[in-house]
Order: sequence, then C-alpha cells, then structure tokens
Amino acid sequence: MPHIRKDPVTKQSVIIASDRTGRPSDYITVKDDKRISNTELNCPFCKGHENITPNASISIFDDNSNWAVRIVPNKYPIIAETKAGELPNTTNLFNASSSKGFHDVIIENPNHNFNFYNAKSEDLLKIFDAVILRLKELYKENDMQYSLYFKNFGREAGASLYHSHSQMITTPFIPIQMFDEINGALEYYNEKSKCVYCDIIAEEKKLNERVICENKEFIAISPFASRFPYQIYILPKKHFDSIIDSSDYNFDFADIVKDVFNRINKLLGEVSFNYVLHTLSPTLKQKEKYSSSNHWFLDIIPKMSKLAGYELGSGVYINSINPEDAARDLRDVSSI
Amino acid sequence: MPHIRKDPVTKQSVIIASDRTGRPSDYITVKDDKRISNTELNCPFCKGHENITPNASISIFDDNSNWAVRIVPNKYPIIAETKAGELPNTTNLFNASSSKGFHDVIIENPNHNFNFYNAKSEDLLKIFDAVILRLKELYKENDMQYSLYFKNFGREAGASLYHSHSQMITTPFIPIQMFDEINGALEYYNEKSKCVYCDIIAEEKKLNERVICENKEFIAISPFASRFPYQIYILPKKHFDSIIDSSDYNFDFADIVKDVFNRINKLLGEVSFNYVLHTLSPTLKQKEKYSSSNHWFLDIIPKMSKLAGYELGSGVYINSINPEDAARDLRDVSSI
Repeated sequence: MPHIRKDPVTKQSVIIASDRTGRPSDYITVKDDKRISNTELNCPFCKGHENITPNASISIFDDNSNWAVRIVPNKYPIIAETKAGELPNTTNLFNASSSKGFHDVIIENPNHNFNFYNAKSEDLLKIFDAVILRLKELYKENDMQYSLYFKNFGREAGASLYHSHSQMITTPFIPIQMFDEINGALEYYNEKSKCVYCDIIAEEKKLNERVICENKEFIAISPFASRFPYQIYILPKKHFDSIIDSSDYNFDFADIVKDVFNRINKLLGEVSFNYVLHTLSPTLKQKEKYSSSNHWFLDIIPKMSKLAGYELGSGVYINSINPEDAARDLRDVSSI
Repeated sequence: MPHIRKDPVTKQSVIIASDRTGRPSDYITVKDDKRISNTELNCPFCKGHENITPNASISIFDDNSNWAVRIVPNKYPIIAETKAGELPNTTNLFNASSSKGFHDVIIENPNHNFNFYNAKSEDLLKIFDAVILRLKELYKENDMQYSLYFKNFGREAGASLYHSHSQMITTPFIPIQMFDEINGALEYYNEKSKCVYCDIIAEEKKLNERVICENKEFIAISPFASRFPYQIYILPKKHFDSIIDSSDYNFDFADIVKDVFNRINKLLGEVSFNYVLHTLSPTLKQKEKYSSSNHWFLDIIPKMSKLAGYELGSGVYINSINPEDAARDLRDVSSI
C-alpha cells in the first residue's frame, strides 16, 4: 500500500507506491541491447589502444606486469577552467563561474567484455585499489571539496561506451546530496553521540527485513527509504568515515560487491545500473569535523524505471517496490 | 566550455558542459516508437469508455455538450490512507506514515491521437481551465499542503498510456524542490522587496539571449541555470503567485504553450517530454506569506538525455546544451 518514508539521514520524503503493477500500459519494455557490434576494433579503453587516451595518472598491474586498471583524465571533462570571455554574461541574478576540477575515467579492465556481472573478486579489488590511490592523490588539491566516484553501466544508465569503466568527478563544491547526508549524519551525532549509519546497521541486523547479504566486514541492505526499485547500500560494519581508511578490508569489499552483482544478475539479468560512492572525500576540508558522524557506503541503483515529471519537478522520488520485498528477492535468489 | 551556474532562485549549482558532442559512443539512439498498435480499442481514456474510469470530479464540455476534458481519480494512486498493519515496522530511525492525498488524472481530450504537438489553442485552453477548477476544489482540503500538476508524454518520459493525459498529485507536504523555490524567492523578496521572477523576466528581456518567444501576457525562456537540454520556462509577465489568479489570461497561456510545442516539434520532432506547474498551490496554507514573492511558471523538459550516476548520486545536474544555444535554436526555428 502507498505510504511515505523519511530517509533516516537526510529526512527527505520518499513515496513508496507498490501494488501498482496492475496498471495498463501501451508500451512494450525494450531490452537494452542496441549496442553497435565490434566496438572493440577502435575502443579507446582496450589493451593496445593506450595511445588514444591521455596518460594514466594511476596504473595497477597484474602478475605479468600488464596493466589491469588505468585511471586517465576524461578527454571530454565536465569541469575545467574556462577562459575569460567564454563564460555567459553574468549579472547580480545570473551567476556563472568556471573552476579547476578533475574528471577521471577509471578503465577497469583491459578486456573489452569484462563487466561487473562476470567479474572475479580479484578484478574488482584492483579497481577499488586504484580508486583509493587516486583519491589519495586528490587529497593534495587544496581548492577541491569533493571527489565523487560513480559508474554508469549500460545505455539506459547513461553509459556512452561499452568497455567497462567508471568515473570520478572532483569539484570545488560539495554536491547537494552529499552535503545533506554529511550534515544529517552530523546532526544525529550531535544529538546522540553515535553514528547514524552504525545505528542503522545494528537495527537492520535486528529487524532482519532489509538485509540482503553480509560477509565478515561488510553488509548489503535495501535502504529503508529506497528512492529506486532494488536500490542497494553496501556499508562497512565497522565505523569508517572514508573508504581510504578501510583499505585493509578492500578484498572483503570486492567480495561483497561480486556477491551483490551475482544476485542482481540472477534476479534482474544484466540490467543497466549506476553506482555512487558516498565517502568523506580526501578533498573534503572538514574531515575532522565529520569523521565520527560519517560512514562511507556504496549506493547501487539498478535501472528499473524512468524518472518522470513528478520526480523531476518535485525532487520527491516515487518507488514502486517495497524495500522489504526487494531485499527478500535479492536474499532468496542466491539459492536459485 | 564547461562552467558552473547557480540557479537564481534556489542557488543550486548546475554544471553546463557543452562541447562534449565529439565523444565517441558505442550505442545507437533508439527512437521512442515501441507503442503497441490499436491501443484505442480498450483505452480507458477514449470517448465511449467512460465506465472504465472512476467518476469525473471535473468535466469540461464542448459546444455540442460532449465532454472535452475529464478529471478522474487515478485508479492506481501513489498516495492513499493505508490501514494499520500495512505500514512497515517503524522505529526511531525508520519513520513511515500514510496519509490522505489525491492523485488525479486529467484526460485531456476524447480523441485517442490528440497530443500537445497537434493541439489547437482552444483544446489546450480547456485543459488548463479544468486544471484550475480542480485546484480550486482542492483548496478546501485543509490538511493538504501542495498540488503538483504535471505531464509525462511518451515512453521515455515515463508515460504508461498513450492517450494524452496529465496528472495532479496533492500531498500533505510541500515537495522539496517547490519548498526550496518558494523559500528562495521569499529570501530575495525580503532583501529587495521585489519578486525574483519579475526581475528575471526584466533582465531576460534586456539581455535578449534566452528569450524564446512571447505574447501579450506570457514569455518563454531558457532558464539561466537550465538543468536539462532545451528546458523551457513559460511565465506570466505580470506578477501572479498562482495560476488561479491569472485565469483571465488562460487563452494567452494556451496560445504560448501551443507556440512552444510547435517550436519543439520543428526542432526536435515529437520528442517525449515532461512538464511541471510551479504555482502557489491553493492547498498551500501560507499563501499570504508568499504571495508577493512567488510567481507561477510552467517548466517544460524535453526528454533529450538520461540521468546518470553523477546526477542521481549527487543531486547536481549536468546539462550538455548551453541555455543560450537552446533559446537561439528554439527562437530561430519558427522561420523554418
């Protein structure tokens, strides 16, 4: 039945409206398969084509000294310093600025057909190791505020290239969603002297309704106020404000990511997805202030629905799958 | 060149990143044409099928006393009072509630193939007249805070039925985007004793870079901090906080809406789109407080791009078309 849930961290309302599956539809769901064939012939991310991309800032190598992961600047960055005269006319009302920033591409594997649905834990580990190395480098950029690491897989999720890659965008501002989360968690901490995410993990384990799977160091849950069908959070069970600080447990992290994508694949097929890392950024200047209250997590969003007018206009999300049902489906699928 | 713009009302950052059109792509753009044929045979919105829908709360009739527009309750509402026992388990951390609310469907025309791209001004006028009548009815609902009128056209924009319709969702809370806008406009008013939208209109007319078209009472612009390619605002030139108060000018409004959709059609074809009405809602209790600072507008979003990980995760939008270029394209197209 439809109801409203409040996100425990940001306090934002989400409308959960399941039981709408009886709705008639005049449209056929189109499978996401309009990929051009033989794209590896001139794929800029394939082994042997390294000269097409800019030089790598980070490379991770395999046992045979071949590269396994490369991080390179995006040739088409969404943030860059703009020459005077290239900005729009500004007035008191109309404020525009350009700024230094970083837009990295993480080429996750030399193999054109590698993806998160066929990956081994060892392959995923190398990707996250590389991301952490790059985050540490960006720590030196004093004028930057946040590095947002994310992935678009599949056309429906906004990917333009098929070869598995993720991205990191480093900006001189904290994106609004991260700002709301960081400050929501701080508010909770100031009131209770506890990390809201640690409390969520304890409560989810007790209720056992939205837990999908766990290993020694990590837990995967359907968030209580999921904005999207089958949205998943993966969190470290111990308190770590940043992914950099938990790097001893990177293998456990890679391992649960592999488990979660196996489950998504079994339940939903090789669906397009986005993921976003929420972490205290090394570039975030007030790390000390937020270290006790913030807790990093990976936010996975399978692309199951289209955002429509209400969401785009209101900023309020409507989710047609109960998070408890999503968790049950993803939990039970392992036995299929 | 990439740069950051701040929305003059909400102060939110938007990243404008044009010049990325040289990016390679492994995917073919699929045209939005997967509609099932002959859907009019059992279309719940067609003339003669009125018994499939609930009774209309509002009907507008043509000169021959046939209905021209009907507003009916959505059979699959996203908001409704839920029986005790049907809510998820709640705790201090996990807050869920159900509530009364209204989810209306506006059946815009008896003709199955009517749409905004082939509409006459007179047809559009009847739709907006009906919407205003319904808004006035909802004024009586003391426990409601906001009525959000919006439209999804085409599968890519989230429509499930082809027959032209729009929706209105009335909630006991003000959606966050409207909350930010209403309060941003109030802040501007408190500082300058002027409506920020009136100032924007004056400045846009002076700069003449982002004006698309205008008639006696309305103006269409590409907003300075457009979140989406070819996003369009239509505003009344005189100050009206709510669409109800400007209903004397409904024909002028219908007329500019028709003009704008003609331009979109000529430039982009019959593209999927969303629109959202931003208005002081009759259900908004503090109408007096916001009457001088708020200014209603229609926000049109042609579906040109997919939201990806950065947008979904960060709440920050990346727009690949300069608003000045969008306005020029839409302005110039009338002469084609």
